[in-house]
Amino acid sequence: MSMQIGVGFLGAGTVGSVLVRRLIYESDAIAAKTGLDLVVRGIAVRDRAKDRGIVIPPGLLTDRPSEVVDDPTVQIVIEVMGGLDPAGDLVLRALESGKAVVTANKELMASRGRELLAAAETAGVSLLFEAAVGGGIPIIRPLSESLAGERITSVLGIVNGTTNYILTRMVEEGVAYEDVLAEAQELGYAEADPTADVGGGDAASKAAILASLAFGTWVGGSRVTREGIEGLGTEDFESARRLGYTPKLLAIAEDSSEGIAVRVHPTLVPLDHPLASVRGATNAVFVSGPSIGELLFTGPGAGGEPTATAVLGDVITSARERLAGTQVKSRIRFASGRLRDPSGVSIKWLLRMTVMDRPGVLAQIAAVFGRHEVSIKSVWQDGRGDEATLLLVTHESPEGDLHLAADELAGLEVVSAVDSIMRVYDDEP
Amino acid sequence: MSMQIGVGFLGAGTVGSVLVRRLIYESDAIAAKTGLDLVVRGIAVRDRAKDRGIVIPPGLLTDRPSEVVDDPTVQIVIEVMGGLDPAGDLVLRALESGKAVVTANKELMASRGRELLAAAETAGVSLLFEAAVGGGIPIIRPLSESLAGERITSVLGIVNGTTNYILTRMVEEGVAYEDVLAEAQELGYAEADPTADVGGGDAASKAAILASLAFGTWVGGSRVTREGIEGLGTEDFESARRLGYTPKLLAIAEDSSEGIAVRVHPTLVPLDHPLASVRGATNAVFVSGPSIGELLFTGPGAGGEPTATAVLGDVITSARERLAGTQVKSRIRFASGRLRDPSGVSIKWLLRMTVMDRPGVLAQIAAVFGRHEVSIKSVWQDGRGDEATLLLVTHESPEGDLHLAADELAGLEVVSAVDSIMRVYDDEP
Repeated sequence: MSMQIGVGFLGAGTVGSVLVRRLIYESDAIAAKTGLDLVVRGIAVRDRAKDRGIVIPPGLLTDRPSEVVDDPTVQIVIEVMGGLDPAGDLVLRALESGKAVVTANKELMASRGRELLAAAETAGVSLLFEAAVGGGIPIIRPLSESLAGERITSVLGIVNGTTNYILTRMVEEGVAYEDVLAEAQELGYAEADPTADVGGGDAASKAAILASLAFGTWVGGSRVTREGIEGLGTEDFESARRLGYTPKLLAIAEDSSEGIAVRVHPTLVPLDHPLASVRGATNAVFVSGPSIGELLFTGPGAGGEPTATAVLGDVITSARERLAGTQVKSRIRFASGRLRDPSGVSIKWLLRMTVMDRPGVLAQIAAVFGRHEVSIKSVWQDGRGDEATLLLVTHESPEGDLHLAADELAGLEVVSAVDSIMRVYDDEP
Repeated sequence: MSMQIGVGFLGAGTVGSVLVRRLIYESDAIAAKTGLDLVVRGIAVRDRAKDRGIVIPPGLLTDRPSEVVDDPTVQIVIEVMGGLDPAGDLVLRALESGKAVVTANKELMASRGRELLAAAETAGVSLLFEAAVGGGIPIIRPLSESLAGERITSVLGIVNGTTNYILTRMVEEGVAYEDVLAEAQELGYAEADPTADVGGGDAASKAAILASLAFGTWVGGSRVTREGIEGLGTEDFESARRLGYTPKLLAIAEDSSEGIAVRVHPTLVPLDHPLASVRGATNAVFVSGPSIGELLFTGPGAGGEPTATAVLGDVITSARERLAGTQVKSRIRFASGRLRDPSGVSIKWLLRMTVMDRPGVLAQIAAVFGRHEVSIKSVWQDGRGDEATLLLVTHESPEGDLHLAADELAGLEVVSAVDSIMRVYDDEP
C-alpha cells in the first residue's frame, strides 16, 4: 500500500554498514513504526571486496559513486563516506538533481555547509545532518527547529568522544597520554591518524555547526580557534584535582554584544559541575538562552549504532516530506553576524609554577598580575625551599593579558618555571 | 518580501501572554532569525478586561473562540487555554477547517491525542505539541522524528516541576509537605487546586504522551497508573537518605516482551544517580534503546518563558511547512501494542518497620518475605528494645507479592508497624 522510497549510500564504513543492515534486514520494524517502505537501491564504496560484517545482496555494491547519485530510483542519498573530497561534490550533485541528502559528515558541513544548504534550498530538497554532531544525541533538530524562536546565547559542551575517553582514563588511572592513545588506537576508539580528534579539529567542526544553527550566523569551521589535548600531562590534572577541577576538551560558542566567539580547548571544570561526570565516549551539550535558561543534552557521542539511529531519523523525516509531496525549505537561515576573535574572551586560568619559597614571593607575583590587570582568585602553595609548587587561579581575563603576565612571571628570579597554564570554566563569580 | 502567516490564540494565560508579547513586540527578531512574518490576528480569552502584563493592540482580544478558529486569515491556531473542554472541540474544528494547530495542552493530548492527530492527518495539516511535555525541553520532536528509527525500550524521568520543587524542599530543609505546598501556592509555583500536580495526574498525562510517541503505540492518559506525593513524610526521606536514596516523582514507561507499562509514582533513586541532582522545577528525561543506549534531556520543565519558546518552535515549523505549500503528514503513527498492568512490573522496595529487638526477629521477617518470593537485598536496624527501626530493601519484585508480604509482616507479633513502603529505582543488580 505504501509507496517505496529509494535510498542510496555513499560509503559503508562503521556507520554506513550498520545502517545498511538495518534498512535491509530490519525494514519490517521500520515500516511498522513509521509506515515507510525504504528500499536500498545502491551502495557506493571504495573497495567492493571488503568485509563489512553483513551480507549485502548482490548488485547493490558499486565502486562508482555516480551510479548512486545519478540513479533516478534513488530519492534520498545517505552520505557516510566522510572527508571533503569527493563527498562535497557528490552531495552537491545529488542535491542539484533533486535528491534529498542525509549526511553524517561534520567536516563537510563545517566547511561547505552554507553552500550546500543554499543548493538544497534552490533545488527544493532537504539536506539533513543530525548525525554530524553528538552522534546519537538529537541536537541539530532541537537547535534548528524546537529552539528556532529562542535567542540562544551560548552552546557549550563535550563533543568529541575520543578525547573525552583519553582524558577520562588519564585522570582516573593516571596513565600517560601516549599510552592511553596507543591503547585507544588498538581498541578502535581512536583513528590510526588521531590528529583530527586529539588536535581539536573534529570538535571545532562540530562547534562551528552548532554555533551556526544556534546563532543563525554562518560560522565556518576555519573560524573556530582550537587547542588539542596533545600537550597535557597527568601532573597538570593532579594539580587541578587539588583545587577541585577536572580537565575536559570543551567546545564553547558564545554570542554577546561584542560578537560571536567559537573555540575548542582543554578546560578545567569544577568536579561538581555536570560536565565533570561525563565520562568516556559520552557527549554532553548545554544550550542557554534568556527564555529557556539552560538545556542539557547527553548521550552517546560516537559509535556506529547510535550514529546510524541519528541518520535514520533524518532519512525518515526526508521520506515523510517526500511522501507529502514536498521538502520543507528554509529550514535554516543565516543572517549576518559579527564574529570576534575568541582570544579576546575572558576566562579564568589556573597556573602551576615552580617558585622559591621566600618572603615576598607572593607579593612579587601578585604585582606582575596586577600590572597586567589580571586579578587573582585563589593561591595554593605546596613544598618549601627552592622547589615549591604554586597553584594560582585568576579571575576572568583575556588570553592576551594572561600570557603577558605569564611571560613576565617566567622572567622573575623567584619563579623557576611556569609549568602549565590551563583555562578554567565555572559558573561562580 | 516574505509572506505573512496569520496566527490566532486560544487562551492568553501564563504561556500565552508571553508568546503574544514575543509575537507582537519581538517579531523583528523572529523574522531576522527565521525569515518568517508571523502576524497575530486574534486572541480568544475568557475575560477581555484581565490585566495580562502586556499592551495588546485593540481589536485583537475576543471572548468568542470561534472568531479565532473560523478566521480565514488565521493559518495557525495556538491553543494555550488548557483543559479538555472547550479546548478539544476547538482544536478539532480548527484542524478540520485546514488550520495547523500548536498546543501546550498535555491533558488534551493524553486524552484525545489519537483522535486529534488522525483529524490532522485527514485534513492534511500539522498538530504539534512540543510544549505539552517538559516545558522548554525539546523532547517530543526528538522522540517522534530524530528517534523514529529506534526501537525505544524505556522513557523515564521527572516531568512535573511542582512536585519536584516540593520534594526538593522537603528533603533539603526538612519542611513538612503541607507547609511547602502552602508556600508554593503563595509563590505561584503550585495551583490553588494542586490535585493534578501532587496527585500525579499531570505527570501521568505527560508519561502517556511520551510512551505513545516512544513506542508507537497509543497509550491514553487513563491507562497510566499513578500515585502522588500527598502521603509522603520527611521521616521517610530521612530513612531513605541513610541508605543512600532520595525521593523523586518518576514517570516510567517501559516496553518489554510482556507489553507496555506506564506508571507514575514516588520513587527512591540513589543519591549518585543523575536524577537525584535534578532540583526544583527542572525536568529530566532518560530515553533508552538498543542502538542509542541512553539519552538524557534536562531543562526547565515549566514556566511561561521556556514553554513559550517550545510553542514558538512549533509555530515556526508549522509556518515553514505552510510556506513550502504543504504540511508533513504521517509525522506520527500508532501501531497496535499490548499494554500491561504496571502493578505486575518488578521493582525494588524500601520498607520501614518498627520492630521489637529480640533474637530471631530478623529470621521471622525473612521467612515472611521468603514465603512470598520476595528476596531481601539489605537490612539496617537502629535502636533497641520494643521500638527499634528496621529498614529493609528488597530485590525486584512485583507490587502484589510485596503487599502480601507486608500485610503478613504487619500481623507478626514482633512487628509493631510497617510504617512506610517506597519503591526504589536503581540500575544495580
